[in-house]
Amino acid sequence: MVVLIAKNTVKEGLQEEFLEIAKEMIARTREEAGCISYDLAGDQNDTQVFYFIEKYQDEKAVEFHRATEYFQTLVPKIAALRVKPSEVSTCTVVE
Amino acid sequence: MVVLIAKNTVKEGLQEEFLEIAKEMIARTREEAGCISYDLAGDQNDTQVFYFIEKYQDEKAVEFHRATEYFQTLVPKIAALRVKPSEVSTCTVVE
Repeated sequence: MVVLIAKNTVKEGLQEEFLEIAKEMIARTREEAGCISYDLAGDQNDTQVFYFIEKYQDEKAVEFHRATEYFQTLVPKIAALRVKPSEVSTCTVVE
Repeated sequence: MVVLIAKNTVKEGLQEEFLEIAKEMIARTREEAGCISYDLAGDQNDTQVFYFIEKYQDEKAVEFHRATEYFQTLVPKIAALRVKPSEVSTCTVVE
């Protein structure tokens, strides 16, 4: 099982716009067969920081996700709202 | 809903010892009523880095977790195996 933790730092004042796009990504991704869970969480100590916490069956499921039309469309929109590129930790579930 | 992302950097060579203690914490915590999910994931790009990804119903469930006997016993043991204190992001699930 693969877990991605993607830290997104959003430009001040653009959080609502970010959330709107993020929610579309979440809804679409949760329908993917290989997606086990997909959550968005806001850092309680920094209103500009959000984490996508994504759990997939395997690498193939991650590749499927990244090849979807909505991923290709939504990611650039999200990127435009960020202060800097997302910081992604790619992990393997141990337990 | 509360999500904690706890980044643990383990001393080189002590990963097995860390995993043994971590697995006990995971098994005990998953039995807590307020614990929705509790995973441990290893960073694919750094064999010393592990993330506890913990989802709780609310703040009260987090407080319950931290007041348990096993939390009080196991956390110091885990701390002794780390290079530095864990870096915890306390988040609220947005979606």
